[in-house]
This record gives sequence, C-alpha cells and structure tokens, in this order.
Amino acid sequence: MKEVFVSDLKKDKEVIDFFMIKSVSVKTGSTGKPYLDVVLGDRTGEINGKKWDVGASDHLLKEKDIVKIIATVNEFNSQLQLKIQRIRKALPETIPDDVMDMGDFVKAAPEDPDEMYNYIMDTCLSFEDDDYRALCRKALEDNKEKLMYYPAASKNHHAELGGLLYHTKRMLMNGERVCEVYKNLSRDLLLAGVIMHDMQKLFEIDADTDGMSSGYSFEGQLLGHIVMGVKYVDELSLKLNIGTEKRIMMEHMILSHHYEPEYGSPKKPLFPEAEVLHYLDILDARMYDMEEALKNTEPGGFSDRVWTLDNRRIYKSEG
Amino acid sequence: MKEVFVSDLKKDKEVIDFFMIKSVSVKTGSTGKPYLDVVLGDRTGEINGKKWDVGASDHLLKEKDIVKIIATVNEFNSQLQLKIQRIRKALPETIPDDVMDMGDFVKAAPEDPDEMYNYIMDTCLSFEDDDYRALCRKALEDNKEKLMYYPAASKNHHAELGGLLYHTKRMLMNGERVCEVYKNLSRDLLLAGVIMHDMQKLFEIDADTDGMSSGYSFEGQLLGHIVMGVKYVDELSLKLNIGTEKRIMMEHMILSHHYEPEYGSPKKPLFPEAEVLHYLDILDARMYDMEEALKNTEPGGFSDRVWTLDNRRIYKSEG
Amino acid sequence: MKEVFVSDLKKDKEVIDFFMIKSVSVKTGSTGKPYLDVVLGDRTGEINGKKWDVGASDHLLKEKDIVKIIATVNEFNSQLQLKIQRIRKALPETIPDDVMDMGDFVKAAPEDPDEMYNYIMDTCLSFEDDDYRALCRKALEDNKEKLMYYPAASKNHHAELGGLLYHTKRMLMNGERVCEVYKNLSRDLLLAGVIMHDMQKLFEIDADTDGMSSGYSFEGQLLGHIVMGVKYVDELSLKLNIGTEKRIMMEHMILSHHYEPEYGSPKKPLFPEAEVLHYLDILDARMYDMEEALKNTEPGGFSDRVWTLDNRRIYKSEG
Amino acid sequence: MKEVFVSDLKKDKEVIDFFMIKSVSVKTGSTGKPYLDVVLGDRTGEINGKKWDVGASDHLLKEKDIVKIIATVNEFNSQLQLKIQRIRKALPETIPDDVMDMGDFVKAAPEDPDEMYNYIMDTCLSFEDDDYRALCRKALEDNKEKLMYYPAASKNHHAELGGLLYHTKRMLMNGERVCEVYKNLSRDLLLAGVIMHDMQKLFEIDADTDGMSSGYSFEGQLLGHIVMGVKYVDELSLKLNIGTEKRIMMEHMILSHHYEPEYGSPKKPLFPEAEVLHYLDILDARMYDMEEALKNTEPGGFSDRVWTLDNRRIYKSEG
Amino acid sequence: MKEVFVSDLKKDKEVIDFFMIKSVSVKTGSTGKPYLDVVLGDRTGEINGKKWDVGASDHLLKEKDIVKIIATVNEFNSQLQLKIQRIRKALPETIPDDVMDMGDFVKAAPEDPDEMYNYIMDTCLSFEDDDYRALCRKALEDNKEKLMYYPAASKNHHAELGGLLYHTKRMLMNGERVCEVYKNLSRDLLLAGVIMHDMQKLFEIDADTDGMSSGYSFEGQLLGHIVMGVKYVDELSLKLNIGTEKRIMMEHMILSHHYEPEYGSPKKPLFPEAEVLHYLDILDARMYDMEEALKNTEPGGFSDRVWTLDNRRIYKSEG
Amino acid sequence: MKEVFVSDLKKDKEVIDFFMIKSVSVKTGSTGKPYLDVVLGDRTGEINGKKWDVGASDHLLKEKDIVKIIATVNEFNSQLQLKIQRIRKALPETIPDDVMDMGDFVKAAPEDPDEMYNYIMDTCLSFEDDDYRALCRKALEDNKEKLMYYPAASKNHHAELGGLLYHTKRMLMNGERVCEVYKNLSRDLLLAGVIMHDMQKLFEIDADTDGMSSGYSFEGQLLGHIVMGVKYVDELSLKLNIGTEKRIMMEHMILSHHYEPEYGSPKKPLFPEAEVLHYLDILDARMYDMEEALKNTEPGGFSDRVWTLDNRRIYKSEG
Repeated sequence: MKEVFVSDLKKDKEVIDFFMIKSVSVKTGSTGKPYLDVVLGDRTGEINGKKWDVGASDHLLKEKDIVKIIATVNEFNSQLQLKIQRIRKALPETIPDDVMDMGDFVKAAPEDPDEMYNYIMDTCLSFEDDDYRALCRKALEDNKEKLMYYPAASKNHHAELGGLLYHTKRMLMNGERVCEVYKNLSRDLLLAGVIMHDMQKLFEIDADTDGMSSGYSFEGQLLGHIVMGVKYVDELSLKLNIGTEKRIMMEHMILSHHYEPEYGSPKKPLFPEAEVLHYLDILDARMYDMEEALKNTEPGGFSDRVWTLDNRRIYKSEG
Repeated sequence: MKEVFVSDLKKDKEVIDFFMIKSVSVKTGSTGKPYLDVVLGDRTGEINGKKWDVGASDHLLKEKDIVKIIATVNEFNSQLQLKIQRIRKALPETIPDDVMDMGDFVKAAPEDPDEMYNYIMDTCLSFEDDDYRALCRKALEDNKEKLMYYPAASKNHHAELGGLLYHTKRMLMNGERVCEVYKNLSRDLLLAGVIMHDMQKLFEIDADTDGMSSGYSFEGQLLGHIVMGVKYVDELSLKLNIGTEKRIMMEHMILSHHYEPEYGSPKKPLFPEAEVLHYLDILDARMYDMEEALKNTEPGGFSDRVWTLDNRRIYKSEG
Repeated sequence: MKEVFVSDLKKDKEVIDFFMIKSVSVKTGSTGKPYLDVVLGDRTGEINGKKWDVGASDHLLKEKDIVKIIATVNEFNSQLQLKIQRIRKALPETIPDDVMDMGDFVKAAPEDPDEMYNYIMDTCLSFEDDDYRALCRKALEDNKEKLMYYPAASKNHHAELGGLLYHTKRMLMNGERVCEVYKNLSRDLLLAGVIMHDMQKLFEIDADTDGMSSGYSFEGQLLGHIVMGVKYVDELSLKLNIGTEKRIMMEHMILSHHYEPEYGSPKKPLFPEAEVLHYLDILDARMYDMEEALKNTEPGGFSDRVWTLDNRRIYKSEG
Repeated sequence: MKEVFVSDLKKDKEVIDFFMIKSVSVKTGSTGKPYLDVVLGDRTGEINGKKWDVGASDHLLKEKDIVKIIATVNEFNSQLQLKIQRIRKALPETIPDDVMDMGDFVKAAPEDPDEMYNYIMDTCLSFEDDDYRALCRKALEDNKEKLMYYPAASKNHHAELGGLLYHTKRMLMNGERVCEVYKNLSRDLLLAGVIMHDMQKLFEIDADTDGMSSGYSFEGQLLGHIVMGVKYVDELSLKLNIGTEKRIMMEHMILSHHYEPEYGSPKKPLFPEAEVLHYLDILDARMYDMEEALKNTEPGGFSDRVWTLDNRRIYKSEG
Repeated sequence: MKEVFVSDLKKDKEVIDFFMIKSVSVKTGSTGKPYLDVVLGDRTGEINGKKWDVGASDHLLKEKDIVKIIATVNEFNSQLQLKIQRIRKALPETIPDDVMDMGDFVKAAPEDPDEMYNYIMDTCLSFEDDDYRALCRKALEDNKEKLMYYPAASKNHHAELGGLLYHTKRMLMNGERVCEVYKNLSRDLLLAGVIMHDMQKLFEIDADTDGMSSGYSFEGQLLGHIVMGVKYVDELSLKLNIGTEKRIMMEHMILSHHYEPEYGSPKKPLFPEAEVLHYLDILDARMYDMEEALKNTEPGGFSDRVWTLDNRRIYKSEG
Repeated sequence: MKEVFVSDLKKDKEVIDFFMIKSVSVKTGSTGKPYLDVVLGDRTGEINGKKWDVGASDHLLKEKDIVKIIATVNEFNSQLQLKIQRIRKALPETIPDDVMDMGDFVKAAPEDPDEMYNYIMDTCLSFEDDDYRALCRKALEDNKEKLMYYPAASKNHHAELGGLLYHTKRMLMNGERVCEVYKNLSRDLLLAGVIMHDMQKLFEIDADTDGMSSGYSFEGQLLGHIVMGVKYVDELSLKLNIGTEKRIMMEHMILSHHYEPEYGSPKKPLFPEAEVLHYLDILDARMYDMEEALKNTEPGGFSDRVWTLDNRRIYKSEG
C-alpha cells in the first residue's frame, strides 16, 4: 500500500514508495552523459526526478507506468526534486506488495461515480416536463460510459476522474435551492440546462479512463463544446420530437452559459434560467479552484498565485 | 380604493382614479399659453400627463401629493400620455373615499418588512461565532429604523420600499444552501458578510420613508458605500473588541464584493466566502431585474431593452 | 412615372409625386388637435411629413402603401420635413398614371437577381470537389426563392432587395483573385465558404419580398445566423454524406467568419481559407457602407458620421 | 552544395554540412569548463549547437560566417540541439566544395527581386494620374538599391530578403482586382498607396544586404515608418509640385493604413481607397504567416502556436 | 454698456440688454405659424430664445450679430428660455449706447494676449540652446497674427479667445518649476516642446478672430495637429539647419504628447522631457475644465456632469 | 572602503571587494556536486555568483551579511556572473579595513532623511488651516520613526531607503508651484493631501530599517494602503475633532489618487486638488523610473525595457 505522497515530500527526506510516471525521457547532460528525466505523480501532485546512471531497463519506462523508487529529495531552483537511486516497474501480478489502489495515483472527485450518476439521473427523472426529461435521460444513458470517468476540463477546474459528474451534481444541488428562492424560475428548464451544459466536453476533450486529458479533439478545436452542444441538442430534439421553443431555449442555454463572447458565448443569456445557469457554473468552478489552492496552504497564509483565479493568492483563515 | 393602475392604461381609455405626483410644473406651450406638466405614478409605473387649462389650485400641486384625476389616455411619440381634464389633491381627512393604501402608490418588496427583518436577525442570532454575531446584531439594531424602508439602490435593482431587506434576505437563503454544498465554507463568515455588505447604502443614498431615493449623499459621492462599509466595520469592531483577522476579513468582504475595480472594488475576493458573497449579490440583482423586465412582457415575446442587463431584451417563455 | 426623389428635395420646394409610406400614425398636437405624422420614402431615402388637417381617409393609410402627395418642403431642427396639403393612395388598377415601378420605392442591389444567382450557381458548379459542390448546390436550390429578394442585413450594409446575392457575388469575385495570388489556398473550400457563410440570414432575419426587414426571428435572437449556419451545414452534410473533416472545416469557416468573439465568432479562423473569408466579408461590407456614405456627399466634402463605420465622416475626393 | 537543411534534422542523425552562424560565444559550463555555444541556421530555420571542447580557432568564429560542421542531433528540453564534434569556416577561395549558394542560407522571397521591382514599376508607369506616377516613380528609383534586398519587417511577416518587394507586389495584384469589383475606386490612388505605404521601412529598420534586420533606427524608434512616410510624401510632393489634396490624401493613406491607434495609426481611413489599402496589407501579412506556420505542419495536424496570429495553432487540411 | 449676462438670468425676470447671436433661423410651429428661433450668448454662456411674431427685419438677423432685446425668462424642460418681445441689431455707428466692448460677448482668456505672447517669447529667448531658440522664435514670429486670438481647441478646454497662448503660458510656468525639482531635465528641450506642441492647432482648427472655431480644416481632419506639427518641425529644421538628433527629439515630443494611441499619439514618450510635456499638458487642460465646471456651482454642491472630465460632477468646497 | 561597485563590473575582470548578500543557498549541480549560489549587491545593483567548492563556513552565510570576495567576472546567457574563488564575512569589529559605510550597500534617496522630514514638517506647519495642520502634524509625528527609513514601494519607484520622504518632498515642491499657477486651488488642502496620500504604505509594506521590503502585510494584501489611508484619516479626524467636510475631502483625496479603478481608486478625483494630487504623484514616479533607467544608459542609446514604464526603452540624449 502506498504510504508516502508527493504532498508529503520534504527536502533531504529518503523515499521508498510507488508513483505513477507522468512523463519520461533519457536526456543528455551538459557533460554529454545520459540521464533519466522523469516526472512522477500521485493524486496529491507531481515532482520531477533525475537518475544520473541510466540502466537498460530505464529505457523501457513509459507514461502511466506505476513504478517503485528509492530516492532522496533535493531542492533545485527553489523546487523539490528527486535524486533517484533506483527505479523499477511495479509487478502486481507477481509481487503481492506491488498491488496498488489506482485511486492513490490519479486525482479523482471525492464521491463515487455511481452515486453521482444516480443523483443526476434521479433529478432528471423527477422533471415534470416530458421533453426535458426525455432529452436529459437520453443524453445521460447514451453517454453513461464516458461520464463515469470524464473530467470536466483538460486542465484547471474539475480536471479529474469523475470531474464532470461532480461538477454537474454540485450545480444541481445549488440549482434546486435557487428555484425555491426565485419562484418564477422553471426548475425543469434550469436543471435540464445544468445536465446538458457541458455534455459535449466528452467529445471536445480527449481523455483516458483515468480521467486524464491528453488534449483537444479536432472538432473540439475547430468548434468547441459549446457549439457542439448546440448541435447535439438539435440532433436529439429531432429524434425525440421536441418542439421548436423548447429546443431553441435549451440550445440557447448551452450557447450562452459562458456569458461573455471572449469566453466562447456569442449570445448572452436572454431568460432567467440561462442567466442562473451561468452563475451556478462559475460559482462551482471558482469553489473548486479555491479549495485546490487552499489544500496546500497553511492557516494564516496565502496560497501561490492561481492562474485560473486571475493570479490571485488565496488566503486561508487562521480559524 | 385605487382600481386603475398605470400598467392597466390603454390608448383612448377614460381614467378616474388616484395617483401620486412624481414631478410637476407649469410650463409655457409653443403658443405662449401655460399648461400643467405632471408625471403621475403608482406602484406599477409612471405616466406623463398634460392639463391644458391651468387653474389656480394647479399651482399648489407638488411632488408626492396623492391626487385624483379625470383624464383620457392619448399616445404621443409612441408613448401613452394623459390628457387631464380635472385634477385635485386627495383629502383623506375629509373624504372617506380618498383614504388610500400607500402600498398602491410606491413600489415595494413583496414581503413584510418585519418578517424580513426578523429572518435576517434570526440568521444573525444563529451564528456560532460570537464576534460576527455581535457585529451583525449591533448593525441591525442600530440601523433598524432605516432598514425597515430603505431601498437597495437609488435606481435599478431593489430600488423599492424595503428593497435592502429583501435583497439581503434572498441572498441569505441562497447562502445557506451554498454552505451545505461547499462544506469548507464558514457559514458565519459568509452570512455575516451578506448582512453587512450593503449596510452603508443607508448612508450612501438619500431616501424617504416611502423607499424612494432622491440621490446620493455627500459622503456617498466622495467615498461610496463600499469604502463607507469598511470604515463602519472598523468602527464597530473597535467598540466590540473584535480581533484583527476577523475584522480585516469582514472589511475585505465588503471591499471586494463588487469584484471588478471598475465596479468599485479595488481588491478581488481573496478567500472563498468573499468570492461566494459576490455571486450571491449579483445573482439576486440579476433575478430582480429579469423579473421586472418580464412583468410587462407577453409570453412568447421579448421585453424592451434593459439598461442594467447590458441592453438585453429578455425572452418570456410561452409555457 | 416617379420623377422627384427624396434625395432631390430642397427647402421651400413644392412636391407633387408618389412615395411609399414607411410609418404612419395620427397624433395629437400640443393644442389637442389631431395631425397626420408620416414617414415617406423611396429608394433614395426617407423624409418625415405632417398633415395638419386629418381627413377620414387619412386614418386608413398604412405602412408600405404607395401614396401621391402635394406638399411643401420645410425645415425643422435643421432637417427637411414635408408639410402635406393632400395625400391619397395610389390606385394603379384604375388610374394609369398611378402604375409605378417598385424599384423606384425600395432600395435594391444594382444587378439583376437572376444574373447574380446564376453567377453564384455557376461558381458552385465549377467546384472540382464533389462534396462542396453538392453542399452549395443544395443550399442554393433549396433557398432559391428567398435568395432572390433577401437583404444581407436587417439594417446597415446590403440591407436592400437582393442584397445577400450581391454581397455573395462580390465576395466571390474578389475570392477568385485571392486564390490566384495565394496559390496554396483551396479555391473550392474558400468559395464554398463564401456561398454558405451568410445563408442562414434567410432565417435569422424576417424580411418581406421587397427586401425590407422587420426585425429578427426567435431563433435569430437566441442563436444567430452563425450558429444556425453551423447547424445547417451539419444537417446538409448528413443528408449528402459528407465526411467529417470537410464538414467540420466548413462549419468552422461559418463559425469564425466574424473573427472576433464580440462580433459573434467564438473561434478565430484556424486555416487560411477561413482567414480569407473574413477579410472578403468585411471588405465588401465596408465598401458598401462607404459607397452609401458618399452618394449624398459633395466632392471635396465629408459625409455625415456613419455609425457602422465607427462614426467616421467619409471624404469624397474633388477629382 | 548544401544538402542537409535545418528543417531536415532529426534526433540522433549525424550531420556533415554547411550552415551560417547566427550567433556565437564561448561560455563557461557549470563545471567551470569553457564550451562553444552557437546558433546555426540556413533558409529553413535555426538550431542551437554546443561544442564541448573549445579550440583556438573556435574563438575566431563570428556572426554570419558560413561554417562546415560535423555533429550529432540531440534533444534537450524537447528541442533539437547539435552536439558538434568539429566546426570550421568555409573557405570558398581555396576549397571548391566550399563555394556556396547564399540563397541556401538566408530566408528569401520566392521571386526574383528584379522581376518584382519591374512589376511594381510597370504598375506605377501605368498610372493615368501624372502626380501619383511621378511620386511613386521617384520613390522607386531613389530607393531602388535598398528595395532590392530589404525585408518588410524586422521580425514576423516578410522578414526576409526581398520581402518588401514581395509584400508590395502581392498587394498590387489583389488591388487590381478590387478595383475591378468596386468600380468607384480610383485605381491610381489605391495602387500608389500600396507602393508608398511601407517605403520608409527602408529607414525605420536597419537591415543588411542579406535581408536580415539588426533592429530599429533612431528615427524608427522615435517616429516610426508611418510618420516617416508622411514626412517623405510631404518632401517629395514639394519637389514634384503635387497639389494639396493629392498630397494630403496620400499622406492620410500612409497614416491610416494600420487602422487602429494601438497599431500606430492615429487616424482611421477616411476614404475608400485608404480603407482598402489596410485590408490588402493585413490580408497579405496573414497569408504570409499562415503559409509559414503550415510549412512544417503535417496534413491533418496543427502548427505550433504562432505569436503573430494571436497565438493560434493553424490547421493543415488532410486533403 | 452691457449689464445683464446670461449667467445672471433667472426665471420670470425681464431682460433688456445686448447679446450676440450664436445661431438663428425662422421655423414653423406646430400650428403652421412661423417663429424666430435664436441662440443668444455672451462671455458667460448661451440661452435659447423664441419670438412668436416674426417681423420683416427678423429675417435679416445672422450669426455673430450683436442685438438688443426685450424679453422675459421662462423655463422649458427645466431649462431657461427667453420669450422675446423685441429684437434689433445694435447700431454702434449711430447710437452711442450701442457701442459695446467685444470682450463682454466672447469667451476669452483672462490675460492680455500681448503679455502672454511676450512671456512666451521671453522664455524662448532665454534658451541657451541656439537651435531650440531659433526654432521657437521662428514659429512664434511667423504665427504671431493667429496666435493673438486662436483658441486651443474647437470645443472643450481653452476654446476661447487667446486660449492657445494662455494654455502655453501656464504650461511654461509649471515647466520651469519641474526643471528645478528634476535637475536632470533639459529646460530648453522641455520648454521648447511646450511652445511647439500645439502650434499646428492654428491650422488644424478653423477659427475666427473672435476665438470661435467653426470646425476642422481638411488637413486637420486627415492628418491632425500632431502629425502636422511633426511635419512643421521638419520643415523649419531644414530651413534653420538643425541637426538630426534635436530635430527628431522635438518631433517625437510633439508626436507623443497625447501619450495614448487612442488619443492620437502613435508613440509613447521615450525620454523624460517628453514625459513631462504630456503631464503639463493634461494638468492644464484638467484645471481649465474644472475651473469652468465650478464657475456656476454653489459652494457645498456638485456641478453638472462634465463630458470632458469623464462625466464627473465636480464638487465645490464650502470653504 | 568599498571601491568596486556592481555597476563597474566588466567581463574577465578580477574583483576583490565587499558586497552585501541578497540571497544565498547551497545547490546541487547537474553532476551531483554542491555549489554555492549567491546574489551579491550594493547600492548600484546586483549580480549572481557561483562558488564551485563549498567550504564549511559557506553554509553559514545568510541574507544581508556583508562579505568580502575574490572572484572573476564571467558572462553566462549574456549576463555577467561572478566565479567566486573566496568569500568570507566582514568582521568590522576585528578588522579595521572591514568597517563599511552602509550607504554603499543599500539603495537610498540622495537627500538626508532629517532634512527631508524637516522640509515636510515645515510645510505642514505653514498651513493656515488648523485642521489640516493638526492632522498632518500628528501623522508625521506618530510615524516619524518609520518615515526615516521607509521606501515608497515594495518594488519599482522609490523602493529605497528614505524613498517615501523623498517622494513626498518632491511632490510638495511641485505642488507649491502649481498653487501659484492655478490660484483657485487651496494650498493647504493640496499639500496636506500630498503628505497623507501614501502614509499607510508604512503599514501596507513590510520593510526593514535598510529600506528594503520583504513583501506585503496581511492588511496590506486584503485592503491596501489606499483604503487603509482612508480609515487612518477617519481615526485621526475623530481624535482631532475635524469636521465632516474636511475629513471626507481628505479621505477622498487618498481614495482617488490612483485615478483609475484598475489601479486601486474606486472613485475618480471630484475636486481640483484631488486631480492635481494624482498628477503630482504619477509625475514623480515616472521621473524616478526614467532617471533610474538612464543611469546605466550611454548617451545616444536606449535603456533596457522598463516594466514600470509600459516596457518602453528610454532614450538618453547625446547632448
């Protein structure tokens, strides 16, 4: 069982434990000698490592391998770095102690994917409006496989295993309350918008079953998940025989949910549910980023600058 | 009892009913003849009126008088206008039918001020943190008289009798839920921030007990309610002996709640509760403006352009 | 036959001729007397008119009627205005002299719609690429009826009978040359993009067969012609069995042709043909607006400020 | 004859060929030992190289020397790098195989300078307007020597031998067509504007006869080629006795051709020819940058981010 | 002698005095009757007037006439307006009481033009640098006639008789001190820049000898006084044989003195004297506008919104 | 006595002299060997140094130590670097030659703190207004200790020993003159604003008695010196019994002195003295930065890009 995590590492400490390879290559030092340059990670973060003697087996290491290492923690340019003495692949099939819980190695939403999926599906099934229920149900069913592991982003907020489900669920929870406070809102329309708003991230982003994204798809780059989402609702509405007003309103919610043109929405929200959708979305993203920023911050101190939060340094209360 | 409201008026209709004078003057027409130019209103809106024969008593009319009129509705430059035959002040002391319910004449929040105030005070009293409870309690008690009628703005969102209480209460309601969803948030800090964030609008804006603002105060123009709010927390904290961290954090929440410098916040939120405060604030303002915009819009149609909503025209669903 | 046009009117001149009603209503003057307030127009412009004696038949006048008037040209607030003595509807069925050429009354592109349509269709048929040829051909054929009269905008550039064809044709002409200069460009891709780029204006804008727009459609307001165009290519490509790369590239050209997010394009052009499409589009719009601005400008003088040209006043050379 | 170009280099390949030195210095490694750090280039690009044993002759190498090297291609920080075993200056006077075609070493426009110059001069001579013909002719003749090799920029688009001629010629080609489509344009004015618009780049930029710029001149930094161009037309017009209107219009074309104040144009174009000039200019720059970006991109893939194209990654069609 | 000024007028007052006609026309009222519509002014402001009976002589009135009127002050749309009973031209040649001091009718700088001119010339003559002294002296002498009355702007700050001299003088006064505080500054360069920076306003703006501008010249519109100023220094430097560095630095000071591209400066200041010049310029403009705004403001009150001061309302201290 | 300064160092020179340690650490080279990495500085600048053999005493070196070194100047990545042979702490108590003048090691304002303080206090005492005199006197007296060494910024302009006094004094000097030129200004109000405007930098910034800042305080980050300054005036005014108008005006001057919201001022200046304060402030900051930029620039050349001057490169006249 893994015991030492990246977030536990401290200068001059010895480490003997398992990590996942994030990237690896054999490079040539300034003296012409080859060395192994590797980024190791687990669910708590990443760290660079160097091994100055390159052995034959080192050339076989590749991304996403789980490896066991013996190393010392150094500091280089104010950043921690591993000086690796030994490194080998984990052999779970032959060595019992090498059997690992994958959840230790990849960043994942803190709730069970099945439960999150069920929460969302239950919300969908509770809609009184037949059309929005049918639309969301179909989308949830057709995409269930990918939904179970997809992140909500390639980087930044909710870029983690199950991140899209987690993001959607938390937005639904807040959305329920907003409908209680603002009684003129259509609960079905708003919550259907929440369920559908990022669905095409499943096709905009390329991601593996470990929730890690390797970048954007061709269509993702040329059109983006917002426009792809509009097309998707169009296609489903045709199949499900959904009328014009509902179809266009749902497409508009997707189209406008980033609010500002420079963030990808050519139209601003033109009815209250679309307006709310945007704020549920951004609030959840900001809470995610701030939670992340404060994870490694001491009480009474400030985090590092966070790019997605306009380079703010976030304060952690002493309390 | 008032029966016909501004929002009921239609071209060519006859009107005999009571209205409040919003502004009034005797002007000279292009032929040199004097006429009475008056803006009449009630809680549903305002309308311009002209009376072509000016009598002696017409010169005595003044702003905020309740008057009874006999008039015809005309259209001028695509806008409705009253051609007034007769106009006289209401005499509630002598004419029983002239006794009016003031709520018919001024725009007011749809809930009872006492109930809203109590909801807010109850929330305050539920705080576990002694300092934030004491701070908010003192602010609520000291300002109770003004709070019972103050609008939340001079124009725009919540510019109505009791608007500040209404705005605060709805933000608290949403805030409660957000704390359930994001469990790392401090409920006391967030909700105290909600209660305090606009408190100095009581002194930035000049308003009458009917909830109508006549503009900004001297200090309001030179400093604004955000900076006045920071000073107010400073002053109360001194009296209540609140420690530095809590005091500065509360001041920061007020300082940053408009989020962008160009909207008056020189600092962006630097901890999660401050971030949330901003979104609760803007969401409530937007919902208010959209509700207003849709009040006079037909289902399946678009509202007029709304200046506070970036000139958007808001759509009202057919459903 | 119409002889006097709006652009010919001068102060103090008498006018006896035919005009089209742009808007009309009976209003009440400051003395309480009704008068007829009418905007009259022809292909050269519009002018406001007043008739101080309102007769019974005046109440029957309505938008788009052709009327014959007797009037004098006055000046009011530095603008010309007609003081109308008589006004009556044209009766082409009973009065031979009342038979009018509609082209005198509405603004129209200077070329014959059939010839423009054929030029565009011929260009389409010349494509070597079967898919782009099929796509454009279907779009041109399916929408032929509307194309023959649709303007390219609700207001501003090419807001005229046949304006969309004219805009498309001129862009094709320039596009041909650009392909000769930059030989790496795909002529088929670029010119297909030109043909498709504004096709959904036919459904974003509501327009009559006289080329005049009465505003935007529901879908036009909530999605806009750019996103509608992407959906349209998606739908046609499915029917015509066009492969993914070509389909997405064509959709991207439409999506990116306004270039800047704040003008409606969430993606910037990502290949050279998409880049060129934008410049062909904007160049043609600017040339249209400048030609219009200079029509009524004296050599050696400046036009009025033109809103669509960033409020510039355009100079007309003496030469 | 040079056989291997920078764009051909691949990891682990051996190289024996000629390159041009772009920059060179002897540095001290982290162990205190000196090494040769050199950037080598040819018309296809540049690559960094290290030589770990520094010999006496290595100290004599300098910028723009042609050298012959023996080296291996390594990878360092994901970029190719040469590990140089031997390096020596080419000796074309004594070694026949060392005689090189300079066109292999510097980036150059793909057309012959003489032909481009003649095309431009022929266009100039075809002007019907005596003044514009005289103005352009004088400018072309007086600056012929520099025009034959000057780049159109210090970096970015057309930063290459003959780049200014190439840029001018392609703009003229497109300009001819634009005059056919928009018949109200003055061909002489537009094309004279094209010829003159960047002429003072010859004095804003410092460049060698190999078309490579070493930066900006004193006047270039304090005034810039746009204002210098205005002054130049002023000066020539005086000599050639050109009248006020033509002179000012030509100066305005130069002044406004960057269109936006933040790109150096204090005035926006105020007549159609000035407007067109801007679009011809930017279109040619963009086509140049996109062609460059796609040169090293695989079909079906995206280029690296291109700074001059707003950091876009450009797509190369599979077709 | 004029006794009543526009700034003295109060509602319902009778007025018998002289004013200058700012604009005049005979218009037709809504009843079809002609009336005289006139804007009257003096050095303290302007006011609209109506005369409901138009006599024959009223048709002869024209801009800049001095007239004597008998009128009553009314209020219309919250603005004062004159109801004119009688109006006639002043006849200074025949009626002694009609002889007027022109300074009562046009806005003028508060100092004597000769004294201001001499102050500036004396400063110029005090320069130690022969070139800058010669340059400024020539510019001052050649333009003396226009300088004596030209405003510094067409509207806004220093749009008054002698305004350019006044603006220049006050900048020189502050500039002297700045050179004492920042001793590394070249006094000659800075003060020469002050003298030259707006000199071409004499040719950018069309103005009469009463200091009132009728708009912009052709060259003013196409090039603007900044670029015209650069050309002017170029031309003078040639005549006076001034060397390159000094010439270009002076041109750069003019070019950069508006600081931001969107205000007309394509280059930002690149040496300290150019930087200072900008701040002297803007400070003087702001002080002028604020003084103007406060002239008609009561102590303890706010001025109207001032467009040139970003729509601020300026506060006048009670003290 | 120190003889060689950082600004004197040239490639390949030998250095034996004293420097102050700005930062220091023992790092591990790419070959695994430790080396000493140190940044050394004096009042003229900073330079990086490496010592390849690390001795025991090297581990004891720390920030702000004065050390004596023997080293050679190398060049690395186009930057000078010291190769240190020997390094030891200065021992002023035992070695007479090691006694140093601290002014050689830290950047300091060029005037004596006492004299600057006195100048400011004298200005304060000259105020006719009792309130402003009392306010400034109290602030100057209460903060005298910190004022004697505090910088005016953490980085950038006036980040030096005594920088805040120097900045304040130079602004006062210019302010005196401005009051002479614009006679409507209140000298007391303006100069009191100058004295108070940055006073809370003493608490926003953490700084040592050597004038060097180690960053921002907690309150500095959450509120900033502008809002802290407003609170400070509030607090002092209460103690000194200063009336509302004066208090609010002084608070407004502090609040608005950065002028633009994005630079921290939620209100723009609303009276002339506040407007002037801003320009005195920015002018002094710019002069400081430009002087700094030109210190190391050759006549006739351009400085490096200066970040605080919008990345401009500043020109130094040949003269």
